[in-house]
Amino acid sequence: MRKSIATVSLSGPLAGKLTAIAEAGFDGVEIFENDLLSSPLAPEEIRRRAADLGLSIELFQPFRDFEAVPPGILAANLRRAEHKFALMERLGASRLLVCSSVSPDTVADDALAAEHLRLLADRAAAHGIRIAYEALAWGRHVDDFEHAWRIVEMADHPYLGTCLDSFHILSRGSDPRGIEEIPAEKIFFLQLADAPPLTMDVLQWSRHYRCFPGQGGFDLAGLVGHVLRTGYAGPLSLEVFNDVFRQADAGRTARDAMRSLIALEESVAQSPAGAAELTRPPRPVVPTGFAFAELATPDTGRLSGLLTTLGFTRTGGHPTKPVELWAQDGARILLNTGSAQSAAGPALSAIGLETPDPAGAVERAESLLAPVLPRSRAPHEAPLDAVAAPDGTELFFCRTARPDHPSWTDDFTGVPGDLAEAAGITHIDHVALTQPWHYFDEASLFYRSVLGLRPDESLELADPYGLLRSRAVATTDGTVRMALNVAYVGAHPGAPDTPWQHVALGSRDIVATARRLNAAGDLLLAIPDNYYDDLEARHDLGVERHRTLRELGLLYDRDPYGEFLHLYTRTTGRVFFEVVQRIGGYRGYGAGNAPIRLAVQHAPPAVSARS
Amino acid sequence: MRKSIATVSLSGPLAGKLTAIAEAGFDGVEIFENDLLSSPLAPEEIRRRAADLGLSIELFQPFRDFEAVPPGILAANLRRAEHKFALMERLGASRLLVCSSVSPDTVADDALAAEHLRLLADRAAAHGIRIAYEALAWGRHVDDFEHAWRIVEMADHPYLGTCLDSFHILSRGSDPRGIEEIPAEKIFFLQLADAPPLTMDVLQWSRHYRCFPGQGGFDLAGLVGHVLRTGYAGPLSLEVFNDVFRQADAGRTARDAMRSLIALEESVAQSPAGAAELTRPPRPVVPTGFAFAELATPDTGRLSGLLTTLGFTRTGGHPTKPVELWAQDGARILLNTGSAQSAAGPALSAIGLETPDPAGAVERAESLLAPVLPRSRAPHEAPLDAVAAPDGTELFFCRTARPDHPSWTDDFTGVPGDLAEAAGITHIDHVALTQPWHYFDEASLFYRSVLGLRPDESLELADPYGLLRSRAVATTDGTVRMALNVAYVGAHPGAPDTPWQHVALGSRDIVATARRLNAAGDLLLAIPDNYYDDLEARHDLGVERHRTLRELGLLYDRDPYGEFLHLYTRTTGRVFFEVVQRIGGYRGYGAGNAPIRLAVQHAPPAVSARS
Repeated sequence: MRKSIATVSLSGPLAGKLTAIAEAGFDGVEIFENDLLSSPLAPEEIRRRAADLGLSIELFQPFRDFEAVPPGILAANLRRAEHKFALMERLGASRLLVCSSVSPDTVADDALAAEHLRLLADRAAAHGIRIAYEALAWGRHVDDFEHAWRIVEMADHPYLGTCLDSFHILSRGSDPRGIEEIPAEKIFFLQLADAPPLTMDVLQWSRHYRCFPGQGGFDLAGLVGHVLRTGYAGPLSLEVFNDVFRQADAGRTARDAMRSLIALEESVAQSPAGAAELTRPPRPVVPTGFAFAELATPDTGRLSGLLTTLGFTRTGGHPTKPVELWAQDGARILLNTGSAQSAAGPALSAIGLETPDPAGAVERAESLLAPVLPRSRAPHEAPLDAVAAPDGTELFFCRTARPDHPSWTDDFTGVPGDLAEAAGITHIDHVALTQPWHYFDEASLFYRSVLGLRPDESLELADPYGLLRSRAVATTDGTVRMALNVAYVGAHPGAPDTPWQHVALGSRDIVATARRLNAAGDLLLAIPDNYYDDLEARHDLGVERHRTLRELGLLYDRDPYGEFLHLYTRTTGRVFFEVVQRIGGYRGYGAGNAPIRLAVQHAPPAVSARS
Repeated sequence: MRKSIATVSLSGPLAGKLTAIAEAGFDGVEIFENDLLSSPLAPEEIRRRAADLGLSIELFQPFRDFEAVPPGILAANLRRAEHKFALMERLGASRLLVCSSVSPDTVADDALAAEHLRLLADRAAAHGIRIAYEALAWGRHVDDFEHAWRIVEMADHPYLGTCLDSFHILSRGSDPRGIEEIPAEKIFFLQLADAPPLTMDVLQWSRHYRCFPGQGGFDLAGLVGHVLRTGYAGPLSLEVFNDVFRQADAGRTARDAMRSLIALEESVAQSPAGAAELTRPPRPVVPTGFAFAELATPDTGRLSGLLTTLGFTRTGGHPTKPVELWAQDGARILLNTGSAQSAAGPALSAIGLETPDPAGAVERAESLLAPVLPRSRAPHEAPLDAVAAPDGTELFFCRTARPDHPSWTDDFTGVPGDLAEAAGITHIDHVALTQPWHYFDEASLFYRSVLGLRPDESLELADPYGLLRSRAVATTDGTVRMALNVAYVGAHPGAPDTPWQHVALGSRDIVATARRLNAAGDLLLAIPDNYYDDLEARHDLGVERHRTLRELGLLYDRDPYGEFLHLYTRTTGRVFFEVVQRIGGYRGYGAGNAPIRLAVQHAPPAVSARS
């Protein structure tokens, strides 16, 4: 289907928005009036620029507060409309969005509204312009799509139809099945926006919190299915008012927007949905585990001691790159002293994901506009199938030590290092990535659509310097889990920066792991005694177990499915390690303990030292 | 009255919060449990530190989900309480806040709730601890203060009373007059928070948007009056959950908090309010006009040409400082090449306010914790009565050319400059200041309480790179007006920074002023033709008037009281000038045109040049 987006969805001046929209692959655009009014470009220049970029101008919007008014106001409104028709002719736009009136001048009289809209459509027809009448969720008298459609039906004019907007329909809890009652030729336009589930004034919700399909809580695939079953063959057009997107890079937002539409079409295609031609990207290749985590570091000294204490052994080195492979059971860590990020490290620069089909995974990612990384490698080395995640972390798709595929581990030659005594670590349980402030919604859509992971609920975590938002994405079986974190609002210049990332290692015996770490000296985060006093108040785990937790600096959580023990190492560069043990079917990440961790990580060193 | 604040209201680790709270002059503190849990300080150390700072620990909070539960859960809850009583003894806290339960385990049975709370109070009494039971607005069964009080009354235990919280009472629209039915000795505590008028889920509203008294929309003076008429003599204690304060400097927030309580007490003192001793700061001295605006600038060259074109004459120089005085009728501009901000200028560094009593104005400001500026001046010079506004702008209180007071203008000696031909400018209409992101609520309270200005509604303005929030503060007669602007959420690193300030000059004939400016060349912001096309669509002002507006680059607005014409100069450093003419009783600031201005100011130079 044709894909379009309203200019209001992106940041910056109009000319830059058009470029970004075209570069992301959209077919058309809705020109938001305020973007035009504040542009130095004449309507003819905008028309030319859009044409040069291959963009059709699908809609000019909005025209407000028109219908069902006293005669004097009607005359002024028609005069205003004639000015806009003249503008649209210059712009080359042939469809005008008219929103249901919010003005105190409008009266609750459907027949009058229909009469006025018929009059407007008559005038529009003379310019070859069609009127798409839409119910705003906060319209004064017309606030749901069925009501708007009844008025359009009553007006019965070939140049008058309705515009459907998923936000206005779904935010009010209207039943979208009624859409199928509208003839396709009377659905003049379809605007799409998702939104997170918030209980708040619908106007504020709409103006600040809309997001792209798949980033919120609405069933947009269902709604689009109803629209397509009417036979609608017009564009799918995004109209998103979002405080964050208003500030983000337009090119990036446009790609995020396009990704959301491709993923939406894919979802719609899974159910019977009329005759529309729907994009069907290659199927997602869901990862089955972590192959490795790669740390970029200026030298291996800082981390090799810690890894040894954690029970890792240096099992190999890369013949042509300054990369070491450290392993313990199924957990593998690469230390890279030669990457672009190494000097500023340690930092988590790449993640290897086990996948049944590395090339297919890259194809899937590419079809969803993920940046595919260049594959510079020596001829005899295993192929590197990799893409960049929104925060810049490289994601490698791997088949580790399988007979059917070259293995990246074969590129590493054995190093006769000391074999460390294993400390019970068995695998990477999850990784936690800090997202740049403006990429949070993009990130959760990326991991969902590109990798087929499932997002959990979004959580708030209290940091001493502000709230963090955290959202986990995981496979259904939990073999791949990632926690995405972001500062809740813009950081204060005076507050410490916290772009921390971490690798959580699964242990089969965290008490043993913790004993080794404690014996090796001051490696662990010092958990306050007050935490343990509270833990005893909240849970009766027995004297012995409470004593062990407190002595070893272990944290505790439980959910209806099981228990969770974990510990944190001190931070090196941007990175720290967590060690976790899931007992029973515990599903979480110890979020209740995160505020304790964050406070200790933020404490001035002199105060945080364990007394 | 004693003043207290909950540690959750401030940013950072607990030890720093205590210091900030004491330095702002509070008498006591509520210890928020999570602050204690994440602190490396033992309860005894916190007790000692508070005592050393002269702070009493007024309350330990919160204890959640206690009452009206099945027997097994009751036992666990009592066990949990005993742990907290032991902790409170170590902490030296003798009052515990118990919130009404939100747990699915609690049942709707007031008698059972009363029985359980009596049991809890009995246990608490053994430790000398009193229980203050509070209704959360989202409590599962108990969600208003009268219900909580009925249960406390039913339980009838000397160690059990109620805690009143203005947010929980006023957010639900409860009638606070019912407070007067509660005996003073059963009101164990009073927590105060204001909040902006938002229609949203009350829990989210409470957790993210509370603010200090006078920063929101609640009638806190009325509520406190009801409480004091019971005879309540305990502390006034602030408990504010606010996303912005969580990130702001703790010392600054604590002073803002104290200022809000002083101003609140002053408001309460104006009505009959029981026998409590209320702070009565010196009366506000409301300014009566602008004496001057001072621009710090590296050299006078950039601005003197513009001022001359605007019709200003250089009328004097300072004998000991590199400061020039430029004047036209009642508008005066100082150019200062020797201030700390000059090198980075031009910037608006100071504002002179006409006031009937400069010394009184400073006393008022000082009593409300405004930083008073040092008065370094030569012995023969006029006194400098000045304070710093939240954004750092210096506010000077002046008596210009009045017989009863030395005039700052006498410090300037005449310069035989050319007398420019006046261009119709008569006075400074308003100044617009960009507030740092974290100081917006503080700023509106500052101008209201310190200067006695009245805040208007908060507005949202669309900038191409995000929304701005704007709030005007003004005297009732409009002789002093200031517009406070702030970026709505944290700025994107890639978006242009916009700490713009401006001085709006009132003209008696803006068309003449505009003609001069246009004749002098490329001084004005180029308003897009599209703006004028839209203006013609919206308003029928006659062909001639529309042509004049378009030719001269004037913007137009109207409200029910009159019309507004205005224009903007290009920006120099951080500063630009606006020229305005109010026709009739127009009350606004042309906010509807601000998005046009912002878009043009943000446009790349090549594109914004007028074609």
